[in-house]
Amino acid sequence: MKTMTESRAGTGVSPPTTSFQEPTYEGDFVLDEPLLLDCGRALAGVTLHYAVYGRLNAAKDNAVLVCHALSGSALVGAWWPEVFAPGGVLTLEHDFAICINMLGSCYGSTGPGSVDPETGKIYGPEFPLVSIRDNVRAQARLLDSLGIRRLRLVMGGSIGGMQALDWAVHDPIRVQKALVIGVAPLSAMGLALNHLQRQAIQHDPEWADGHYLPQRPPRKGLALARQIAMLSYKSAELFDERYGRNPNRNGEDPWGPSALENGQGGGLIGGRFDIAGYLDHQGERFIERFDANSYLAILRTMDTWDPLRGCSSAEAFSGIRAHVSFVGISSDWLFPPQTVRDFAYTMRAAGVQADYREMTSAHGHDAFLAEQAELLRLLQ
Amino acid sequence: MKTMTESRAGTGVSPPTTSFQEPTYEGDFVLDEPLLLDCGRALAGVTLHYAVYGRLNAAKDNAVLVCHALSGSALVGAWWPEVFAPGGVLTLEHDFAICINMLGSCYGSTGPGSVDPETGKIYGPEFPLVSIRDNVRAQARLLDSLGIRRLRLVMGGSIGGMQALDWAVHDPIRVQKALVIGVAPLSAMGLALNHLQRQAIQHDPEWADGHYLPQRPPRKGLALARQIAMLSYKSAELFDERYGRNPNRNGEDPWGPSALENGQGGGLIGGRFDIAGYLDHQGERFIERFDANSYLAILRTMDTWDPLRGCSSAEAFSGIRAHVSFVGISSDWLFPPQTVRDFAYTMRAAGVQADYREMTSAHGHDAFLAEQAELLRLLQ
Repeated sequence: MKTMTESRAGTGVSPPTTSFQEPTYEGDFVLDEPLLLDCGRALAGVTLHYAVYGRLNAAKDNAVLVCHALSGSALVGAWWPEVFAPGGVLTLEHDFAICINMLGSCYGSTGPGSVDPETGKIYGPEFPLVSIRDNVRAQARLLDSLGIRRLRLVMGGSIGGMQALDWAVHDPIRVQKALVIGVAPLSAMGLALNHLQRQAIQHDPEWADGHYLPQRPPRKGLALARQIAMLSYKSAELFDERYGRNPNRNGEDPWGPSALENGQGGGLIGGRFDIAGYLDHQGERFIERFDANSYLAILRTMDTWDPLRGCSSAEAFSGIRAHVSFVGISSDWLFPPQTVRDFAYTMRAAGVQADYREMTSAHGHDAFLAEQAELLRLLQ
Repeated sequence: MKTMTESRAGTGVSPPTTSFQEPTYEGDFVLDEPLLLDCGRALAGVTLHYAVYGRLNAAKDNAVLVCHALSGSALVGAWWPEVFAPGGVLTLEHDFAICINMLGSCYGSTGPGSVDPETGKIYGPEFPLVSIRDNVRAQARLLDSLGIRRLRLVMGGSIGGMQALDWAVHDPIRVQKALVIGVAPLSAMGLALNHLQRQAIQHDPEWADGHYLPQRPPRKGLALARQIAMLSYKSAELFDERYGRNPNRNGEDPWGPSALENGQGGGLIGGRFDIAGYLDHQGERFIERFDANSYLAILRTMDTWDPLRGCSSAEAFSGIRAHVSFVGISSDWLFPPQTVRDFAYTMRAAGVQADYREMTSAHGHDAFLAEQAELLRLLQ
């Protein structure tokens, strides 16, 4: 019998045709003044971890900002290598790409695991709500420090697309073009999915109201949250094609007893189907690389983003000067393509140069990462 | 501020236009011989709790069997009153309706909470896998005892539809017509949703590997399982229409701190959106009425049902003599209508008199319960 890890090799995202890109530089930027947040609190000593690729030209007008998705990092060359592929969105000969880890994350920027300089203790559950706009404000200071007063392009998928769009709204002078992939304000179903992920973490007794020790995190809760999310990142069609009603590939029998070593659950828990083995594997991988409180922080950032909250579309969007391109994904049920399209058309009706394209893919929301080559074909 | 219960009144299923029907009789039937199960084990002293409506005629040929869904009971007059409405599927003047609680359930039939006569202890997690066919076999003995050798109709939605279909397959002489609503073998997405519900329960430390005390059940895990299920029972469209991105109706503020009394979660957990309040309410209601081990037992019954497993459609279906009517629901993403339709067409291609109709509803899988009047209009 193969181990789980072996048997799951190659079942994740499609292998990129472009190899990993090393950043030109990776480091930290510390804001010299506190960051005033939309929620009314202030964060002192904010650190932004970022990576750059290529070189900033003398005119400093070749910068492209790439914004990452929920569990991503500043290392865009690792998780989105195709954007650097020949004929891709960027070329390292001409462009200077920068990617900044989101606030709240666990990949180097200030988040719940950081020390609050005011108390000397880690924020933990007291980490405040950081909005998408707060992220844009902080990122703007980093760009200021680099002398970047113009962005040829800001781009991102999912919560990265929320950032790209907010850049166009809140810093219209700097942004020439925005590329917003697979995103609109979360629908009720999206809010529901996030709520259940949050509860999965909160229900884990190891979460301890957010005061868990680093060596004893709420692993089961975070794994279940990730598994719920995976359903929404993929499509029923893809699951049927890849896993169907097959027994788990390690040899378990859904019609027989569970193969759990300690026999937990007796007759109530059977051998797993293949889709269950896949989801468990995704959960196990995720808890090795992500922090539960960071996950909660970014869920809130995502939930609360809505440029149209409390204002008309004209008020929200009429200041935009950038050309805004939206991409919807045909099989995406977390951010359904018609929702993305409607959002683009609302923006266009407000006078923005906005266009909408649809990527045909069975991969669901994840298609912008899982089918990078397809995405680039659409964008060319 | 209203209490949750008050504020949620009237937001559940549509009020039935027909009132609750009292059963003519409600009671238990005990099998006189052990029930041999597909899994190889045997259940001794099996009890079936059942309810009947109307009167069996002298010829004993006016019986209709109604099969309930996952968390239903034998009291079909309470949960599906419209089937008895004037012009409905049944009339109590002419029909004798019978509904039998599924094995594994917590509403009177033998389940994980029952005492195993061989050990004198409750089954708990040792309760075996009981297949849909095992249920049909047990139910057939009850019908035999009542002298019912002909069923004018067997009907059910969801896992009730699985039973109705298996009746037509395994007892072709007895069944004249089967009505199968919103069901086909679970897709990979359906198996995935059930797997995550199972994990939500298993992760709750109160579950205690299935050995929990009745007074200390895994409430949080069962509530989360129900909430995950609710997503799959409803549709994104319905959620948008009813809840949208509104703050929870009790006055919580998603952009402010959580209103939890003990302040758990600090800045990481905000006030809830309305959809979150709705889901929490559904979870709270469910744990008052259902048992976690029963839930696990029936999930397995559902997961493992596949009449086409290991055989051709001709082998599986050619013995059917009943007319089989399928109903798909336009917005159902747990059992998508095209899946139900394809299943019906597969059966027809095997020589069965099968037809397919589609119910147009935004209510998702639950439409057969939430929009009963619509369902009946379709069936007339």
